[in-house]
Amino acid sequence: MKNFFEPKRIAVIGASRFRGKVGHDIFKNLLKEKKKVYPINPNAKKILGKKAYASVLDIKDKIYLAVISVPAKIVPIVLKECGKKKIKSVIIISSGFSEIGNKKLEDEIKNISQKFGIRILGPNCLGIINPHKKINASFFNKMPEKGAIAFISQSGALGVAVLDWAIQNKVGLSSFVSIGNAMDVQFPELINYFEHDKKTKAICLYIESLKDGRKFMEIVSKSKKPVIVLKGGLTKAGEKAATTHTAALASIAEVYKGAFKQCGAIQVDNLHQLFEVARHFVYEKAPKGKKGLILTNAGGAGVLASDAFEKNNLEVVEIPEKVIIKLNSVLPEHWSKNNPIDVIGDATPRRYKKVLAILEKEKFYDFAFFALTPQTMTKPEEVAKLLIKFQKKTKIPCFGCFMGGDAVKKAKKILKENGILNFKEPEYGVAAIAKMVKK
Amino acid sequence: MKNFFEPKRIAVIGASRFRGKVGHDIFKNLLKEKKKVYPINPNAKKILGKKAYASVLDIKDKIYLAVISVPAKIVPIVLKECGKKKIKSVIIISSGFSEIGNKKLEDEIKNISQKFGIRILGPNCLGIINPHKKINASFFNKMPEKGAIAFISQSGALGVAVLDWAIQNKVGLSSFVSIGNAMDVQFPELINYFEHDKKTKAICLYIESLKDGRKFMEIVSKSKKPVIVLKGGLTKAGEKAATTHTAALASIAEVYKGAFKQCGAIQVDNLHQLFEVARHFVYEKAPKGKKGLILTNAGGAGVLASDAFEKNNLEVVEIPEKVIIKLNSVLPEHWSKNNPIDVIGDATPRRYKKVLAILEKEKFYDFAFFALTPQTMTKPEEVAKLLIKFQKKTKIPCFGCFMGGDAVKKAKKILKENGILNFKEPEYGVAAIAKMVKK
Repeated sequence: MKNFFEPKRIAVIGASRFRGKVGHDIFKNLLKEKKKVYPINPNAKKILGKKAYASVLDIKDKIYLAVISVPAKIVPIVLKECGKKKIKSVIIISSGFSEIGNKKLEDEIKNISQKFGIRILGPNCLGIINPHKKINASFFNKMPEKGAIAFISQSGALGVAVLDWAIQNKVGLSSFVSIGNAMDVQFPELINYFEHDKKTKAICLYIESLKDGRKFMEIVSKSKKPVIVLKGGLTKAGEKAATTHTAALASIAEVYKGAFKQCGAIQVDNLHQLFEVARHFVYEKAPKGKKGLILTNAGGAGVLASDAFEKNNLEVVEIPEKVIIKLNSVLPEHWSKNNPIDVIGDATPRRYKKVLAILEKEKFYDFAFFALTPQTMTKPEEVAKLLIKFQKKTKIPCFGCFMGGDAVKKAKKILKENGILNFKEPEYGVAAIAKMVKK
Repeated sequence: MKNFFEPKRIAVIGASRFRGKVGHDIFKNLLKEKKKVYPINPNAKKILGKKAYASVLDIKDKIYLAVISVPAKIVPIVLKECGKKKIKSVIIISSGFSEIGNKKLEDEIKNISQKFGIRILGPNCLGIINPHKKINASFFNKMPEKGAIAFISQSGALGVAVLDWAIQNKVGLSSFVSIGNAMDVQFPELINYFEHDKKTKAICLYIESLKDGRKFMEIVSKSKKPVIVLKGGLTKAGEKAATTHTAALASIAEVYKGAFKQCGAIQVDNLHQLFEVARHFVYEKAPKGKKGLILTNAGGAGVLASDAFEKNNLEVVEIPEKVIIKLNSVLPEHWSKNNPIDVIGDATPRRYKKVLAILEKEKFYDFAFFALTPQTMTKPEEVAKLLIKFQKKTKIPCFGCFMGGDAVKKAKKILKENGILNFKEPEYGVAAIAKMVKK
């Protein structure tokens, strides 16, 4: 596996001189990061200033990874050459195999790879990106930030959107892998690799179908790192679309759901949740239970958060009488006297500080949800800093829901930099939290 | 009602010299827009360079609207003076009435207002903002863009977050109204006002409780403009929070749901949907039915969209055989041959154009959902322009789901400027569309 993610020398078979060609982009991406990369193209002498080879067999040095981007029918030929060259890891970017019904050709390359003991990623995939080692063996032309989230996608096209989004939103990745038709290398092995990868803290998957469910469950069960799954094709309509798309067998949503639950994978509803949940795990551990405390300076936000709690089977925990008595001494007379704790719209950082000083000594809740709207007396940045201190002291999972635009922009940045997730509004946020709570 | 939204002369009772005071902010906001505004404050000679009056009775000119921001116990006194001055519209910003259990004081101001025939907005509210007339009779210190969405909020604090968000995201408003305790002016009257307001195309409400459900239903039933509702306090936990917050009677979620459905109000699940749905109505009419066409260049996005269709009870409509035959002639051999129409990752604008030319002549679908990820051959901006032409020609409601970051940024802007809603990912988008479909 390591050869896929940290190869010393790479051959790009089908490297092209012409912009717009996939083989050109892959070679360029690798060259850009100053990798030891060899272009293979029998019709060119030089590509982007580098000497081109007609075949991998013409290279003297040992090659650790080959990336193939030639027409499907030529793949068997170049793959055999890889075998002879003793290359043990190959990414096949080329499409035109089982995904369009050409099972025969896929079987042919499978046989070749087995004969030579080659591990294959793909075919019909986008490739691999490893920001930590600056490896971009894909035709996506940007490098995401280094981070702790591994993302394995069964859809390359969706992968492109996620990568582009991750770069814009500065979400760091430990690696990105597009598995395409997953002829050989599949989810379980990759999960196992990331389980042992020190840079990875959370493993995200976009799955359309699993070929070996049993192995998947076994590996995920053993994993100490959170495995978060978005399963496409959950409904009949989705399955139909997935079948056409990946040529995999349609499979029953409920079976998947049950299996994910059994092995401890966290199943989410959408891409947003996939990364919100992952980001939280990168920051800290999951809430131990479903008892949540809501603290708000906006009654309406408290109402919406409470609604979302109930909808998502979280508990708006009762506040013990003795805590209410303590809070009475620092809050205006007509505060809510209940959870959500409404510190009232005119709450200053001073009032927040007093309330948090009381709450940090109490252990009646599993996590805290802080909703805030930027009112006249509100100082969002100062409140954000207080929450960070609170979290550091209590070690209780904290979530922000600072709502608004420019008035909360800086505060949101402060929360993010200090490892507190912020949600745009209660509904989406609470739904994501519910996915993290240990069942 | 007009005096609330387009007052010629305004008195701010409790205008203050001191920054940070609500009465200061309101006066400043009105002054900033060069409104004819009179500060009332017996302890000041001048406020922000304007001559201050001890009482509204000292002003010679006719006053059309008074905004009161004095301690609760003084409100009856100044309200009586408003009555004597024959001011017929008053916004009471001050809090300290029924929301904290002081029903007696609220009854007292109710009696005064009835005696003098004064209409009251509030008490305990944020005020009114009308961007078209540049009226900012609130203590929120920015002016949203002019637009066609009216937003009436029962929570002032939530209103602040929404206003701040709207400004950042350039979502235009026709007016913003915070109704506070809704002692006198309530939802039905305001909806009726916006129904006749030429600038308003969609009416958004954040409701925690309705005092006169029958009248509400009557008005909404008659409304020709879409009324979109986010109801806070839908669950037991939420209701409990709402009760503490607004001192209104707790009411049953199901009763509200049924009532909204019966009168044709569109009930949404969160603030994001509230504005997405409203923005769509500002652009165009709702889909006539639930038959949707999905066009995508990313199989995975098609799968996720299909899942979301089924989850939200929309139909991934079957494509008639004759249309499939036509599409065969312009799409690669192994296209999906089904809905979602997967134009394949390497689709150029040229291919899109050919596909759209076929689809624009067909009438088997009620709306179209265009999912796109920015792959090597994709030209998002050019595709966006093709979709705009398509919508203009067909008049069929179209929705974009251009996914990614910087690579789709410009394309999303083009869609927005030309009245096509774009969603970040299928799940949220499809859920919002489902709310718009005529039942």
